[in-house]
Amino acid sequence: MKQAKFSMETVGKVITCRAAIAWTINAPLCIEEVGVDPPKAGEVRIKVISSGICGSENHILDGTFPVPLPAILGHKGAGVVESIGEGVSSVKPGDKVLTLPIPQCRKCDSCLHAKGNCCLKEDAISPVGLMLDGTTRFTCRGRKVHNLFRTSTLTEYTVMHEISVAKIDDAAPLEKVCVLACGFPTGYGAAVNTAQVTPGSTCVVFGLGGVRSAVVLGCRAAGAARIIGIDINEGKLARAKALGVTDCLNPQNFTKPIQQVVVEMTGLGADFTFEAIGTIEMTVAALESCNLSYGVCVILGVSPVKSHLPLDPLKLVSGQTLKGCLLGEYKSRDQIPLLVDDYMKKKIDAESLITHNLPFVKINEGFELL
Amino acid sequence: MKQAKFSMETVGKVITCRAAIAWTINAPLCIEEVGVDPPKAGEVRIKVISSGICGSENHILDGTFPVPLPAILGHKGAGVVESIGEGVSSVKPGDKVLTLPIPQCRKCDSCLHAKGNCCLKEDAISPVGLMLDGTTRFTCRGRKVHNLFRTSTLTEYTVMHEISVAKIDDAAPLEKVCVLACGFPTGYGAAVNTAQVTPGSTCVVFGLGGVRSAVVLGCRAAGAARIIGIDINEGKLARAKALGVTDCLNPQNFTKPIQQVVVEMTGLGADFTFEAIGTIEMTVAALESCNLSYGVCVILGVSPVKSHLPLDPLKLVSGQTLKGCLLGEYKSRDQIPLLVDDYMKKKIDAESLITHNLPFVKINEGFELL
Ligand SMILES: NC(=O)c1ccc[n+]([C@@H]2O[C@H](COP(=O)([O-])OP(=O)(O)OC[C@H]3O[C@@H](n4cnc5c(N)ncnc54)[C@H](O)[C@@H]3O)[C@@H](O)[C@H]2O)c1
Ligand SMILES: NC(=O)c1ccc[n+]([C@@H]2O[C@H](COP(=O)([O-])OP(=O)(O)OC[C@H]3O[C@@H](n4cnc5c(N)ncnc54)[C@H](O)[C@@H]3O)[C@@H](O)[C@H]2O)c1
Ligand SMILES: [Zn+2]
Ligand SMILES: [Zn+2]
Ligand SMILES: [Zn+2]
Ligand SMILES: [Zn+2]
Repeated sequence: MKQAKFSMETVGKVITCRAAIAWTINAPLCIEEVGVDPPKAGEVRIKVISSGICGSENHILDGTFPVPLPAILGHKGAGVVESIGEGVSSVKPGDKVLTLPIPQCRKCDSCLHAKGNCCLKEDAISPVGLMLDGTTRFTCRGRKVHNLFRTSTLTEYTVMHEISVAKIDDAAPLEKVCVLACGFPTGYGAAVNTAQVTPGSTCVVFGLGGVRSAVVLGCRAAGAARIIGIDINEGKLARAKALGVTDCLNPQNFTKPIQQVVVEMTGLGADFTFEAIGTIEMTVAALESCNLSYGVCVILGVSPVKSHLPLDPLKLVSGQTLKGCLLGEYKSRDQIPLLVDDYMKKKIDAESLITHNLPFVKINEGFELL
Repeated sequence: MKQAKFSMETVGKVITCRAAIAWTINAPLCIEEVGVDPPKAGEVRIKVISSGICGSENHILDGTFPVPLPAILGHKGAGVVESIGEGVSSVKPGDKVLTLPIPQCRKCDSCLHAKGNCCLKEDAISPVGLMLDGTTRFTCRGRKVHNLFRTSTLTEYTVMHEISVAKIDDAAPLEKVCVLACGFPTGYGAAVNTAQVTPGSTCVVFGLGGVRSAVVLGCRAAGAARIIGIDINEGKLARAKALGVTDCLNPQNFTKPIQQVVVEMTGLGADFTFEAIGTIEMTVAALESCNLSYGVCVILGVSPVKSHLPLDPLKLVSGQTLKGCLLGEYKSRDQIPLLVDDYMKKKIDAESLITHNLPFVKINEGFELL
């Protein structure tokens, strides 16, 4: 096996490879030579085969979601285990794995709770960019470089805690499944787990980026009768129809607020609305687009840090629900490999997954594209 | 039958009787002689036997929840049908009934939706204080007097739409069941329907007034292991223990914010929190007292009109849920009579209901008490 070969050569040693470094906000990533330390106890070193970037990376680079820099970004990746640290038992060198932006330690309060998936070992909400011991495994130009969400996939090799690594089917095509590490479960789970979309219902999806496309698939799988998609990018609106969106709206084509347009289209507001753009304006629009009596609004988008949603609690009293969700409420290590199985069995619509515009950056050729 | 007798004498005529009028905010109610018109088509005139007042009346009288005045307040009452207007088929003279602050027309979008109970014919959220035809059935000192939520129970006779009247068991004790028209279902339903409290969970109830006592009963019925009650009134805290509250906290006894006390007591925040005081400060406290990953916060309290909850959407993203509910999500005409049946079968803890401090104003003797 190929993996076994490089494993033997590199185990226990620093690997020198290429990575994309974010030195500062508002600047392009730089392809640099980095040193990747061997995994410590409970850690896994992974050869990254494919990696996606999502809205969160944009928020980081434009400064609305601050993380410690310099850092190696990328948090959804697929790869092969190169070597493991002491005590690691759930994966071994050569295993195919996904990198999870939210770990599942199986021991903390949230992991032990039936409804919790925000493992207390996560580093995605207020990132420090370091491993649990407060150090990093990356070095570049003599400086320590932070990780992102304890994943960092825009590199040829990364080191992660075992609790953030999901072993997947040996037959999974690594170039394709990296989207199953974050964007897909976030959106699909928001529809099927968090909102629990009901058959015949009307859903509104704000924004049709990577995450949102998966929301649309989830709404469709749950039997929604009408799916209204909202985006300012006409290209995305066009493609959305193919995914199952029944009505497309571009807020820029209306003089009145888009929530008013939605309420008029639906009579009295939608059953379910999803915000996955990440602005307060669109969060308010999503909330006001759902029915006052029974509407459920799910927030997936990551709004700028310390922003405030001016919520009138009296409006909720008529029966509305406002929910957030992380990674589609999936218990990450337990459930994401099952999504890979569903993908392999074609239970998840592979074509739509592949046609949506998440850049499936193949690291080796892909750095040039960045 | 007694009722038949007074019916025959009064049918089709204006009834002159006593009622408690709110002429203005920040002043006591005045007992006055009022004229109560006969019911029009689709309406029912009711002899009120008992009536409760709840936090909503306090909010009205202190001006935080504005309603058109002068008005006859009171929205939870039990009584006997005196006469019916044209086309009324669900009740007849002599029937025992409860007055419902939220109607159930069975025809509107919300009534037809499986999860909706905020009938579009309601007048409780932004009250106009008039019947659906824009008029009122009450006159006092030559002036038209508004109703409250199309109920008005602090009067010997009232006129309501049939869609707001629930026929109940003939054997129900009218002096006791008026609490089943609002306070009890609001609180009990918030726990069992809205939050869907799970066995073994930790619940926090902010405020232990009439509504909240019912929340405690609902949490207990759903199998909560720990119920933390919060109130500034020591008397209510003492009585709360008898209802099933396991830990009582008075925010005035702490220098740090009460949410911090709750989070420390529970480790990482509660499973379910309930706000039924009606202030922004306590709504924030309720939200911040529930677990970031799986906590559910239910808002029952009616905060001052146009107040804003400064919500950071990033906090919800880890998995929290914020929900409002009206009348405990019960479909009022269908389900509240079933609660009366449960009360009669002692499935609902009658003793706790009666010991909590909702004033069961018996109108005939009770006006002197007001
Ligand atoms: N909750 C979670 O677990 C989780 C996980 C991953 C990503 N996210 C968040 O989800 C959000 C979306 O991620 P993505 O990868 O789909 O992003 P993306 O950049 O692929 O998509 C954003 C979309 O929003 C559209 N858009 C931007 N501004 C708009 C506006 N004012 N009105 C209408 N449309 C507008 C863009 O055209 C684009 O199609 C981000 O905020 C990201 O941080 C959350
Ligand atoms: N959603 C609904 O369908 C619905 C129905 C009925 C009532 N309500 C609302 O529920 C709320 C409560 O109604 P109620 O009848 O129980 O009221 P109540 O007046 O009987 O009880 C209020 C309680 O809150 C306590 N309190 C006040 N300020 C406090 C503070 N700062 N900290 C802690 N405790 C405090 C008081 O001591 C009292 O025990 C009101 O806002 C009312 O409008 C909502
Ligand atoms: Zn955990
Ligand atoms: Zn992502
Ligand atoms: Zn209705
Ligand atoms: Zn009430």
